[in-house]
Amino acid sequence: MEREHISGSFDVELNELRANLLAMGGKVELMIARSVKSLVDRNTDLAVEVIAMDHEVNTMEVAIDEKCLELLALRQPTARDLRFITLALKIVTDMERIGDKCANIAKRARELNKEPPLKPYIDIPRMAQWTEIMLKEALDAFVNGDADLAIKVCKDDSFVDELNVQIQRELLTFMIEDPGAISRGLKINYVAKSLERIADHATNIAEMVIFMVKGKDIRHTIA
Amino acid sequence: MEREHISGSFDVELNELRANLLAMGGKVELMIARSVKSLVDRNTDLAVEVIAMDHEVNTMEVAIDEKCLELLALRQPTARDLRFITLALKIVTDMERIGDKCANIAKRARELNKEPPLKPYIDIPRMAQWTEIMLKEALDAFVNGDADLAIKVCKDDSFVDELNVQIQRELLTFMIEDPGAISRGLKINYVAKSLERIADHATNIAEMVIFMVKGKDIRHTIA
Repeated sequence: MEREHISGSFDVELNELRANLLAMGGKVELMIARSVKSLVDRNTDLAVEVIAMDHEVNTMEVAIDEKCLELLALRQPTARDLRFITLALKIVTDMERIGDKCANIAKRARELNKEPPLKPYIDIPRMAQWTEIMLKEALDAFVNGDADLAIKVCKDDSFVDELNVQIQRELLTFMIEDPGAISRGLKINYVAKSLERIADHATNIAEMVIFMVKGKDIRHTIA
Repeated sequence: MEREHISGSFDVELNELRANLLAMGGKVELMIARSVKSLVDRNTDLAVEVIAMDHEVNTMEVAIDEKCLELLALRQPTARDLRFITLALKIVTDMERIGDKCANIAKRARELNKEPPLKPYIDIPRMAQWTEIMLKEALDAFVNGDADLAIKVCKDDSFVDELNVQIQRELLTFMIEDPGAISRGLKINYVAKSLERIADHATNIAEMVIFMVKGKDIRHTIA
């Protein structure tokens, strides 16, 4: 009975951990959407809001880290649970860094909003949407142990990479034609690269999920 | 006696883990130095070598990850040992990504070596040296639990950031003066940014070490 009680309570704790990870993920997804919205709508107040959200995400990271250590120390999990908790430790790091990148995008938006627009943003919002979905699906794949969904995320990454290359090429044309556009071009380029890196983080999460589920390492075989 | 035997063998295993982490770190440090050398010396063979080293680093990551999981499952460590092993799990991820970045620098070197040189590289080798030392010191701080050394690493990061800003500004001048230099300028810019990201990874490692040693979170208080 006692054992059952402990194990029941362990399940509750694992579910809490799952819920906290998804809550952190939800906040980070919002940050992706809002950081790009602050750029597209030239809304500097929203950019400032995103920068503030980064602190909340940092606090969430520390709390989840501590919870994982507590579970490892007090519950001494094995097999699947052990893999889940150690992966949670790695995933929060990725999510925290996505938060950092969103804050950086917001900082660039704040600068770009002070200058005349270079061109309407079309591909950057598309990139942001893709990365947001990738992150959401990577986390869903993690909490549900869904390797198929994780594989989809890895494949979607190439689409974001293509969009990034396309944006860079377009910006390059603008900059070659008008040197006065270079400074703004580089900032927009930075935003696109940040989104590409966010998608990389989502891909990293997805690769680790496949490893967790399938128990073999494809992290370094999917290009 | 039996317990002592197990605990003695656990120490051996922890020392092995430490040694493997340092070996992986050593290889990644070499990758930083060689990727930049392949650019500065216009040595494309060396660039190809760095790209190949990335696979070895990936293999090392998987092996260390597995060792950590094994130690957690079979040894059920607590307190300091638990924190050490879980941190090792996070640190290998950072090191593997540094390896990725070095491979990317080498790929850019391979491209840049086909074109006429834009300018002599002065600040980029300096940046590389700093990031290499930062990584080395962050790992030393980790295996020796040396918070002071880790704090030094965090402080050194601002120097690398400054060098990066300086390089970007200089490249911008080149690109504004000569649109024909933009394509090469962006590639060199990418190299500088990659080095800055490598320094960020070293800083991330150092911040986590301070957390491990001091048991409180400064990860989000040192800017």
